[in-house]
Amino acid sequence: MKITIIGGTRGLGNWIARFLKSKGFDVVITGRNKAEGENVSRKLGVTYLQDNVEAASHSDVTIVSVPIGVTTRIIKEVAPHVKEGSLLMDVTSVKEEPSEAMREFTPEGVDYLPTHPMFGPRIRSLDGQVVVLTPEEEVKKSRWYPKVLEFLEAENARVLVTSPGNHDRMMSIVQGLTHFSYISIAATIEKLGIDIKESRKFASPVYSLMLDMIARIVAQNPYLCYAIQTNNRYIGQTHEAFLETFLELKDMVAARDERDFVGAMSSAAKHLDDLEAALGRSDKAISALNQEVQLLKDSVGKEVGLRHIYSETTHVGRLKELSPDFAVLVRDENETRLKLSNVEVLSQAELVNWKLDNYPQKVYDVSAVFPESCNPSIIAETLMNLSNVVEASVVDVYTGKQVETGKKSVSIRYSVINPDARFEVENLLKGFGGVIR
Amino acid sequence: MKITIIGGTRGLGNWIARFLKSKGFDVVITGRNKAEGENVSRKLGVTYLQDNVEAASHSDVTIVSVPIGVTTRIIKEVAPHVKEGSLLMDVTSVKEEPSEAMREFTPEGVDYLPTHPMFGPRIRSLDGQVVVLTPEEEVKKSRWYPKVLEFLEAENARVLVTSPGNHDRMMSIVQGLTHFSYISIAATIEKLGIDIKESRKFASPVYSLMLDMIARIVAQNPYLCYAIQTNNRYIGQTHEAFLETFLELKDMVAARDERDFVGAMSSAAKHLDDLEAALGRSDKAISALNQEVQLLKDSVGKEVGLRHIYSETTHVGRLKELSPDFAVLVRDENETRLKLSNVEVLSQAELVNWKLDNYPQKVYDVSAVFPESCNPSIIAETLMNLSNVVEASVVDVYTGKQVETGKKSVSIRYSVINPDARFEVENLLKGFGGVIR
Repeated sequence: MKITIIGGTRGLGNWIARFLKSKGFDVVITGRNKAEGENVSRKLGVTYLQDNVEAASHSDVTIVSVPIGVTTRIIKEVAPHVKEGSLLMDVTSVKEEPSEAMREFTPEGVDYLPTHPMFGPRIRSLDGQVVVLTPEEEVKKSRWYPKVLEFLEAENARVLVTSPGNHDRMMSIVQGLTHFSYISIAATIEKLGIDIKESRKFASPVYSLMLDMIARIVAQNPYLCYAIQTNNRYIGQTHEAFLETFLELKDMVAARDERDFVGAMSSAAKHLDDLEAALGRSDKAISALNQEVQLLKDSVGKEVGLRHIYSETTHVGRLKELSPDFAVLVRDENETRLKLSNVEVLSQAELVNWKLDNYPQKVYDVSAVFPESCNPSIIAETLMNLSNVVEASVVDVYTGKQVETGKKSVSIRYSVINPDARFEVENLLKGFGGVIR
Repeated sequence: MKITIIGGTRGLGNWIARFLKSKGFDVVITGRNKAEGENVSRKLGVTYLQDNVEAASHSDVTIVSVPIGVTTRIIKEVAPHVKEGSLLMDVTSVKEEPSEAMREFTPEGVDYLPTHPMFGPRIRSLDGQVVVLTPEEEVKKSRWYPKVLEFLEAENARVLVTSPGNHDRMMSIVQGLTHFSYISIAATIEKLGIDIKESRKFASPVYSLMLDMIARIVAQNPYLCYAIQTNNRYIGQTHEAFLETFLELKDMVAARDERDFVGAMSSAAKHLDDLEAALGRSDKAISALNQEVQLLKDSVGKEVGLRHIYSETTHVGRLKELSPDFAVLVRDENETRLKLSNVEVLSQAELVNWKLDNYPQKVYDVSAVFPESCNPSIIAETLMNLSNVVEASVVDVYTGKQVETGKKSVSIRYSVINPDARFEVENLLKGFGGVIR
């Protein structure tokens, strides 16, 4: 199946191209900049075409993934030319306008499906990610619709089907209101000249996580943020409603009207869903961050494993120093300084597994004489329970001239990471009365 | 040392009374409502007095813990009467006004220390909690100041020393601005009649945690929130600055002024501190929540332990059902339905430890004959490595008439939770050629 991503050189389009390529599809990307397009196509192992219409007219599926502001124009350009029997999709953050454009410009015999993947290009798989589809009733009966559903469900995505209008209204809150007020908070802090680093010293863990979430939103792509604010037609009324609400509350504070302020705050709280659950989940998020810090504090001077959360590189060494922001690991006299916010602490089991995968293993053979009634495979299993032993198996069992009557010689081959484990192995065998040969 | 908590019957005052009592201090609480005061004093095992002045005049330390709005009045009432050589403190969320009142009304020979504990009565210890002190230079040289510091540091609190003005200015952001804008967001959602539960279906994990943090703030005590908004003299200008900023951004969106909007957003982001760290920490918080859900999904049909995050009660059973909000555990045909947001999943090690503490253990003796060269304590240690064996020790070693020459009988006492583990123990002994007697 051939799939074209219009605007597949950057951002989410690039992510989709790479993802579909990894799933075995024949992928074509387009993009205005030819040099960039050819460069990206080489990297991803996909085809690049500069001409949107040419690409769309030869594909089974065409996905429009361009900035919101030009989505409608691109749909108008491409839709009339998509191949008969094929599928046209978009992946824009607003749904009303693109849906209308697709309805108007898609020819008879072509299916279209407006889509909003609720994630950015930082994710690694579709597992657990929300994908909103806003098909018209007719589209739901089409040939392509069940195929798309099946594909998304096989990838374990959470598919949500709704109308374009309901999508845009919800998004005016989910993205529109929260983004806009968080940006306003950050810009206010800047305007007041408050030193955020200093304010964090005053901060409870709750405030700290709150500030991290604000920073996270404000650090997003500002062009995308702007495009969402300007292309969702419900956001205007959301801005108005927020302004009105803010002024009402501000007046209550200015007028020292405790009763009304308390009433408004309680009522707003009640309107949110299950507060107890929200408290529980955020408590867990905060305590996860604290627990990790505590674990590290308890590990100074000991061996730890730290995995970088983005690159997934693991660093193992003795934790020499720990500051609120950094950890210093030492291994073979090399020091590595790691930013705590970007690393996760490995559990003991993860650390052992990492070592197994990354440290060279040494293989040894040992033979010991036991009473003839012994069971060699239980002996091997017991050795494997030693924490430093990776693998152990019986390679030979011998009764005969060289062994006393009523006895049996058992040979076991085992591998260890740390050669010192040989003493542990031999001690265990001798402990049960085995005689090492 | 006798410590009086003025307003020790409720909220943070109640928490301080309980905490100091547990540290061995002689604690007195006061409160306007006599019946409530006597009831609380019985529960906490502390003394109740209705008269603030009487309590303060006989104590070594007096801590004013009353609503912000009445703090200054209570300081004026109590300060002139505190015992010579004693210490007066307050624990209010604003610091300028109480500091001025203490400076004015505390008599010669009495130390005073304005304090703001940055936590609520939900915490269990001072470990890692921020406590802000705003002492004047003279107070820093006083007899009491180093004692308070020493006490807080011994409890592992994070002490921050600053001026009352700087404290209030920081708090106008840390609490004032964030609380106020979060309440405005929630009230706007209510005003627009948006169904929050439905909006969560559209939500990425980021939005979900963001909403939880908003709910967490809005679900706070509205009277305390109101008091902070009205008693911090910097908050007025914060409201004005926010309003101005919001209107500027709103106008940029209305005027379709992309350049200015993008500029303002980027500049605000730059003004926040280390964005990469904020991203890393919030990614970790989100992934901690996701990992737990994944762990539970993988455990359906298996035995799990779930600990309630507030009551710390642990429930162990077979995970029969899992919905997005609930888990159903079955044990001995009893079903327990638990809200996921309020429970943590125990690790395998925690589950084993919990069972050791909570399930009855059975003790068994076993004797086996081994070659005389064996080492009985290594045999006992090896048995203890079996996952179902809790404890194992050598109780007897015998060589003599009843045992073949060159052999030794080793008796071991071991305890297990699951009686089936007896077979494992005997199999291991036999596996090494031991003969069970």
